[in-house]
Amino acid sequence: MITPIFWIVPIASLLALSLAFFFYKQMMKESEGTEMMAKIASHVREGAMSYLKQQYKVVASVFVVLVILFAIMAFGFGVQNEWVPVAFLTGGFFSGLAGFLGMKTATYASARTANAARTSLNKGLQIAFRSGAVMGLVVVGLGLLDISFWYVLLNSVIPAEAMDPTHKLSIITTTMLTFGMGASTQALFARVGGGIYTKAADVGADLVGKVEAGIPEDDPRNPATIADNVGDNVGDVAGMGADLYESYCGSILATAALGAAAYVATGNVEMQYKAVIAPMLIAAVGIVLSILGIFAVRTNENATIKNLLRSLAVGTNLSSVLIAISTFGILYMLQLENWFWVACSVITGLLVGIIIGQSTEYYTSQSYRPTQRISEAGKTGPATVIISGIGLGMISTAIPVVAVATGIILSYLFASGFDFANASMGLYGIGIAAVGMLSTLGITLATDAYGPIADNAGGNAEMCGLGKEVRKRTDALDSLGNTTAATGKGFAIGSAALTGLALLASYIEEIKIGLIRIGQTVLNFADGREIPIHKATFTDFMYYYDVTLMNPKVLAGMFLGSMMAFLFCGLTMNAVGRAAGHMVEEVRRQFREIKGILTGEGEPDYARCVEISTKGAQHEMIFPSLLAIIAPIVTGLIFGVTGVIGLLIGGLSSGFVLAIFMANAGGAWDNAKKYVEEDNLGGKGGDVHKATVVGDTVGDPFKDTSGPSLNILIKLMSMVAIVMAGLTVAWSLF
Amino acid sequence: MITPIFWIVPIASLLALSLAFFFYKQMMKESEGTEMMAKIASHVREGAMSYLKQQYKVVASVFVVLVILFAIMAFGFGVQNEWVPVAFLTGGFFSGLAGFLGMKTATYASARTANAARTSLNKGLQIAFRSGAVMGLVVVGLGLLDISFWYVLLNSVIPAEAMDPTHKLSIITTTMLTFGMGASTQALFARVGGGIYTKAADVGADLVGKVEAGIPEDDPRNPATIADNVGDNVGDVAGMGADLYESYCGSILATAALGAAAYVATGNVEMQYKAVIAPMLIAAVGIVLSILGIFAVRTNENATIKNLLRSLAVGTNLSSVLIAISTFGILYMLQLENWFWVACSVITGLLVGIIIGQSTEYYTSQSYRPTQRISEAGKTGPATVIISGIGLGMISTAIPVVAVATGIILSYLFASGFDFANASMGLYGIGIAAVGMLSTLGITLATDAYGPIADNAGGNAEMCGLGKEVRKRTDALDSLGNTTAATGKGFAIGSAALTGLALLASYIEEIKIGLIRIGQTVLNFADGREIPIHKATFTDFMYYYDVTLMNPKVLAGMFLGSMMAFLFCGLTMNAVGRAAGHMVEEVRRQFREIKGILTGEGEPDYARCVEISTKGAQHEMIFPSLLAIIAPIVTGLIFGVTGVIGLLIGGLSSGFVLAIFMANAGGAWDNAKKYVEEDNLGGKGGDVHKATVVGDTVGDPFKDTSGPSLNILIKLMSMVAIVMAGLTVAWSLF
Repeated sequence: MITPIFWIVPIASLLALSLAFFFYKQMMKESEGTEMMAKIASHVREGAMSYLKQQYKVVASVFVVLVILFAIMAFGFGVQNEWVPVAFLTGGFFSGLAGFLGMKTATYASARTANAARTSLNKGLQIAFRSGAVMGLVVVGLGLLDISFWYVLLNSVIPAEAMDPTHKLSIITTTMLTFGMGASTQALFARVGGGIYTKAADVGADLVGKVEAGIPEDDPRNPATIADNVGDNVGDVAGMGADLYESYCGSILATAALGAAAYVATGNVEMQYKAVIAPMLIAAVGIVLSILGIFAVRTNENATIKNLLRSLAVGTNLSSVLIAISTFGILYMLQLENWFWVACSVITGLLVGIIIGQSTEYYTSQSYRPTQRISEAGKTGPATVIISGIGLGMISTAIPVVAVATGIILSYLFASGFDFANASMGLYGIGIAAVGMLSTLGITLATDAYGPIADNAGGNAEMCGLGKEVRKRTDALDSLGNTTAATGKGFAIGSAALTGLALLASYIEEIKIGLIRIGQTVLNFADGREIPIHKATFTDFMYYYDVTLMNPKVLAGMFLGSMMAFLFCGLTMNAVGRAAGHMVEEVRRQFREIKGILTGEGEPDYARCVEISTKGAQHEMIFPSLLAIIAPIVTGLIFGVTGVIGLLIGGLSSGFVLAIFMANAGGAWDNAKKYVEEDNLGGKGGDVHKATVVGDTVGDPFKDTSGPSLNILIKLMSMVAIVMAGLTVAWSLF
Repeated sequence: MITPIFWIVPIASLLALSLAFFFYKQMMKESEGTEMMAKIASHVREGAMSYLKQQYKVVASVFVVLVILFAIMAFGFGVQNEWVPVAFLTGGFFSGLAGFLGMKTATYASARTANAARTSLNKGLQIAFRSGAVMGLVVVGLGLLDISFWYVLLNSVIPAEAMDPTHKLSIITTTMLTFGMGASTQALFARVGGGIYTKAADVGADLVGKVEAGIPEDDPRNPATIADNVGDNVGDVAGMGADLYESYCGSILATAALGAAAYVATGNVEMQYKAVIAPMLIAAVGIVLSILGIFAVRTNENATIKNLLRSLAVGTNLSSVLIAISTFGILYMLQLENWFWVACSVITGLLVGIIIGQSTEYYTSQSYRPTQRISEAGKTGPATVIISGIGLGMISTAIPVVAVATGIILSYLFASGFDFANASMGLYGIGIAAVGMLSTLGITLATDAYGPIADNAGGNAEMCGLGKEVRKRTDALDSLGNTTAATGKGFAIGSAALTGLALLASYIEEIKIGLIRIGQTVLNFADGREIPIHKATFTDFMYYYDVTLMNPKVLAGMFLGSMMAFLFCGLTMNAVGRAAGHMVEEVRRQFREIKGILTGEGEPDYARCVEISTKGAQHEMIFPSLLAIIAPIVTGLIFGVTGVIGLLIGGLSSGFVLAIFMANAGGAWDNAKKYVEEDNLGGKGGDVHKATVVGDTVGDPFKDTSGPSLNILIKLMSMVAIVMAGLTVAWSLF
């Protein structure tokens, strides 16, 4: 069933894509500056593209295996939806495409930003920010386009006559939900591989360059410097984009499935339809208003860092406020049941996102005491820097968790009519809160992707020896990027947590469809009651599978889930350690063997370092990635649905807190070092500075590899469970 | 109801106490060696005692407040058991007494061990180990004595005529369970305060002494060296003892309550009685066989470290095997229903404990690759040492968690007759597995407490400049202590996890009694069913409170529980950082102001450093401790029983994994440094060594403060919930 209002969704997505294309073309018209600037940019671009190609090859082979597996499950054993094998591919393809386009734009933009900074600060900001906006718009545009496409297709091909209409919509939404796994798998490799790449290069470059050879960051004499700049693109642009593409699609699809579920029992097909398209409409409106925000970002010539921050804040705040207001409007127009309170759930999500962002800024910015205290701990050496950073990171989990917990309760209560027993509407409320948080993604992701562009522009300016005035401008742009990167990380984690919850709730819907597929029609309870499956509520399923907290399968699952978060983190930490070790050896070798490299007479072999990072990342990403995919499958085969839910919730609750801890500790260490470099506590080169450099190096994999990879783990395990639901209900050991 | 077989329990406890007294007397007969040795030992002893007195003062004031609160709840509002205010005190008193006696013995034993080492290695081992055994025996002896006393008392004062006999036993066991909170509260301050003290002194001493002044460990010129030795006693003896006292009593009491609950519905009072005393009997038999093991520990003159380890292993393994066999015997004699399989649950617990210990050794000993790899990471500086240590710690969580998860499933299945639906017997199985794991506590704790005694003996020998041969012997004893300390930590965490689960399960029993106390007699369900409370099963209560994983109150509680584990850790980490900072300043001040201190001519002001650590620890322990007590109360007041269970399980699953991570990372860093000091990778004083010293310093609060404190958090939150159950059922916001 498709009514006119639905068409807002594909139109908004096309609008986003057109604008992205326009921004891209505009940026390409600018000059790249001197020949050397262009040359360095092309080095970075080629390195990044060659990495991405390598990664796509690995991902493609994983996809082939999985598609065959899904096809066997679907057509051989009938425990899988027949659309999944194809749809899995489109999700993966669009996610990969978004990463590719965003990164390509970013790598073209860096030299142009540096060159524009020779003219003025505002010009530099415009180019960098609008190029970042390409990423934001491509992600939301392709995401909504994929969703619209499948929604229209499935609506027309699934025969309505054969079944109850509420059942039809329920099948459509649960089928669409499984598409998310394609995006999830793509995101997994992008985040983990990109994360390992970027930090292997960064840590390697820092350890030998800064610490041993004593040359500054981004110095052209350092052979790892190009790899380091490549890393920013593959990790922070492509990786972050794929992560949020997944959250974006996942939250919309999960909420649609929950919306369909909420109205199956009532038979009110019109309201069901409205509940299904509500999250898509909110996302569509969010796109339009994000675009408005993007245009509002501008600054004047003599802008300070504060002015710059304010101009970005103007854009995002404007979008947020407008979305909050419009949500009431669009849900009112849609005449969704209980529209006012459902809109309040959306606003709750938006607010939780803002609170997490603010708290991240407080705990990681050198303008506030917590980070300054880490710098001060440097007076007694690196050990106390590490201890106080870990302490800060752990303490910093309190505000985000309380915000999310409150958000869960409120969004549930609002949407359920303040009735805890009304789980189907309550969970819909949690889902739509996630959509609310992510509705600003067009502009939030623009500010995120802006960071690495500005960073690379700074690197380009440094390597090409541009004037002091230009360096000052690119430094200002870079510094702004560091702050937006930190808040962006908080936003990515928060949205992953809410999306993870929405996915977890919609897992029950997949179980329902899975049971129907294998021919079960009623739920039989021990006390003799029988409930027809398509009338069963969430609570009925919880009792049917005995998903209570005293079931040993749930308990075992939860312990395993918590452990998975730590294990996954530990594996990625060690991966960075090993890959960085190879990089260190290579840089040392070049310093030793290439004559005149430190005097600037000999040219370092940049390509070799890029190659080492690429190989290291490709090699190291395989094991943790496969583990994340396999864990929920094995748990399902042993402990069934009950154990899987335990695993997911254990992984979600521990993983969320662990991710915040790691991101904030890492961010704070980074800025504690910056604080010292701003001529505090002895300034650059002093003992305190050396101590904080150790903290910064430890923080690199915390904030850019392991921490962000947890976002994926949280969502991916749910996605795998969802796609494997058919198998899990058909067979398990216990 | 008390039958003859029960009297084994108090008899075993008195046997343990007598033997402890005998060992103490024997040790006191030995000479303390030279005058200087006696003087240094008395410095340490006085420092430790003065710390303990300070701590008891703080604890006493907290106890006064809580007793008043409980009395008001019990006699004013009728939402609390009337016995709790008194029994709370006995639990706290006995736990404190055990810590006091154990630590007093330890501080008398150190100089005597050093002196005995002048004669022979075996003599040194005997004195140190048997003095450690005093701690082990006092803990199990006082624990079982307290339990026996209250069991006999309540059996005689609670009128049997007035009620159903199964109900009577149920009331007795749930009342006794609340006594555990006294022990929990005492343990909280002992672990947190002791942990902060010991690491503030250690980190402070190391940072200035080893790193800045370049003088070796335990050098008498270092003013913090006495405080450091005091710290070993207050943290690793008194703190560890209180922690395990709590686990020991908690697991026995929780299992007794679960045993009573399992037979309430059947009305089989004889079997109920057997299920209640079974855990006590297993513990009693464990005491006797631990004593046998203690006597089996001896070594010959030319023992290597391997021989020493083997002689300790002979003792503990002998005890474990005998306990495993005897468990079948005692449960057969008791004619407990399903005795064979219940005994299998006990063995499961024992095995899980052993697996955790082995895996801890693998991941933290420098004889194996994981720790050696950390040392190798030192080649690229301190940052990579930290990264690889954190990676190792996180990865090392896998085996213990899988072991515990498997243990949960197996012990549940065995005791429940392989029926997942039989929750009452299944949970009893999990409880008795915890008792099984802790049944060897008499000897395991002896090996734990041995560690700090040997460490202090080494310190004493160093400070008094005893001969090289003696130093070699005390070094061997000390090194042995480091290994037992690491496995002991694993054991403490594993037992805390299982005990926490048993407490969590028995929480439902307290809810039941709480409901009855406020006059509710049936559980009313939404679908009209009514179940009389005293006939309701675990599953009924789960459904009544809707403790399913899709309830937002459960979800919010779980997020908050996970966060609590991190927050608590972060607060204790920072506390160590701050307290160590004060110590560093003081040591620097003394080096600066006291003339001739570094040449050995001036005497450092040891007492001032002891005072600073004491004050720091007392001051810093308050906030995290109160937070741990208050969190479950506030959660209960807001989210009711449902939210509390979520909080507990979230805290338990995250806290357990986090605790293993921190303990193992810390242990591995410590030994990675030792590995370098054993003349690997450049040996002492090289760059790799310097890098690993940073790791060791970071690891100190990981393994000795924050990690172990989590054991308490896991159990304490459950205990608080149990004691507050009456209030929670009477009133909550949602």
